Amino acid sequence: MSGGEESDVFAPLFNEQGLIPAVVTDARDGAVLMLAYMNRDALKLTLETGEAHFWSRSRQKFWIKGETSGHTQNVKDIAFDCDGDTLLIQVDQIGAACHEGYKSCFFRSVDGGNGGVKTTEPQLVPPEQVYAKK
Amino acid sequence: MSGGEESDVFAPLFNEQGLIPAVVTDARDGAVLMLAYMNRDALKLTLETGEAHFWSRSRQKFWIKGETSGHTQNVKDIAFDCDGDTLLIQVDQIGAACHEGYKSCFFRSVDGGNGGVKTTEPQLVPPEQVYAKK
Repeated sequence: MSGGEESDVFAPLFNEQGLIPAVVTDARDGAVLMLAYMNRDALKLTLETGEAHFWSRSRQKFWIKGETSGHTQNVKDIAFDCDGDTLLIQVDQIGAACHEGYKSCFFRSVDGGNGGVKTTEPQLVPPEQVYAKK
Repeated sequence: MSGGEESDVFAPLFNEQGLIPAVVTDARDGAVLMLAYMNRDALKLTLETGEAHFWSRSRQKFWIKGETSGHTQNVKDIAFDCDGDTLLIQVDQIGAACHEGYKSCFFRSVDGGNGGVKTTEPQLVPPEQVYAKK
């Protein structure tokens, strides 16, 4: 959004930590599932394998979505924004994307102006099925 | 995605720069329009006014989407992820969200494995109509 140049090649811009944020959507209905981060190697692995690879900032290691839970993400499309500093990745999501058992990590919304919260999605699976395996 | 606590209040987590990324989607069809960043005051202004306010990292100032172009974003819903460190904001987008004249900033995708690029959206307006006003 800050005046990037138009380009005809895929030249993603990584931030000062060497990361690029990736918005992950469900290829079937376009629902936003999660935001995660890739470093250059995670992006390379994603492009090579067709499986979404990310970089965990807290654990400082690669993670493959679904590697332990089986809730994998097969990549259907990788788009990038006008600045080249954000990715938009469409995936075939198997099962719940969120470790709390919801389809999307964005299952809560602000409710009114008093800081209240509402849950906007049904829980697909008990969180133990996803969370305990992380 | 890194083991956030469930919470019943809206308590967004800002990063070390005091920012939180916000995925902005079209409330009508769910299309992902852009990723931008808010600081605490931009979020407060967004909640108070119902107009999307962001913080420009490059210009170090607030910006209101559409304040000069007229391509405003009226906020319909603010969701947050399981970690509380990303927002998902549904807006009524007036006109093009992208300063290059496209509905979405994600109008280009990776095409095949050779670094090629394809344009996946029609241009809604000439970029001069949006870009020159930034």
